[in-house]
Amino acid sequence: MTDDTDRPGDRKVALPETADAVVYFIGRIRTPWKHRDDCPKNGGESDAVCTIALDERYAAGLKDVATCTHLVVLYWMDQAPRDLVVQAPRHYGEPHGVFAMRTPARPNPIALSVARLLKVEGMKLSVVGLDCLDGTPLLDIKPYFASTDAFPEATVGWHAARKAREQAR
Amino acid sequence: MTDDTDRPGDRKVALPETADAVVYFIGRIRTPWKHRDDCPKNGGESDAVCTIALDERYAAGLKDVATCTHLVVLYWMDQAPRDLVVQAPRHYGEPHGVFAMRTPARPNPIALSVARLLKVEGMKLSVVGLDCLDGTPLLDIKPYFASTDAFPEATVGWHAARKAREQAR
Repeated sequence: MTDDTDRPGDRKVALPETADAVVYFIGRIRTPWKHRDDCPKNGGESDAVCTIALDERYAAGLKDVATCTHLVVLYWMDQAPRDLVVQAPRHYGEPHGVFAMRTPARPNPIALSVARLLKVEGMKLSVVGLDCLDGTPLLDIKPYFASTDAFPEATVGWHAARKAREQAR
Repeated sequence: MTDDTDRPGDRKVALPETADAVVYFIGRIRTPWKHRDDCPKNGGESDAVCTIALDERYAAGLKDVATCTHLVVLYWMDQAPRDLVVQAPRHYGEPHGVFAMRTPARPNPIALSVARLLKVEGMKLSVVGLDCLDGTPLLDIKPYFASTDAFPEATVGWHAARKAREQAR
């Protein structure tokens, strides 16, 4: 994806010559966003209702999913470059390591969002909290457990420092 | 892995004949647990310090990771069966859909833990909060953002009901 590559400060690596494992796309995510620039910066930035459409093959795997209030959704950022290790974010200047960012550009372009589940109807899950392009391939759905997944005290230092600088302006 | 298969209530599907994408193992996770039965039930159950050893190739990707207090760690459960869609959990009886559980058995055996970062030394990250076997392949490291990832109010209905039943006994 051209807008993810060749920004000042970007750093690339040669990827391994052989893959280690394979993934199956188990469904598709339907969102209102058809172009990268339309997507919200993260899942918290939009109240849009999105639909996770699971393939019929895996139907039985949804048993009891409707009892969850929140889901971890894993999806495949199939348009992202995989050879970037340092990248200047799209929305602000200074480059960071890709493992310190939620950019789709990373060796394994697996994105993660926590989504609020509204309803399950057949193979379709209505959720709020996704940020991806319409048609994004689905990899996994997991129940979100507050006991092991919620850390309200967590901080990302470089990001907090940037926000503080912006507010001081 | 035999202890993940052929339990009463298990339900399998035929997986697709072709894969949709490939992943690279970008490092290994070192933990104290050499056998499945030694592993904690989840990352919150142990204070053991584990080590994420990233491959040298991706070194630059760690820039600014040390400023994060918590990380999302994705890893590949390479010993889990991929064809189960309904499974009776190891620790208690009633079967659930794999998408309503955090079992490693799922079409794409990608596991997720939120880990507390203690330090970064070269390619090695010391963390608390992992639950996997020693040598587990690493897929990704992401910063944990409380603003989009922390939902302390989230509940998993089937799990809460089971706990309530246990406490009523």
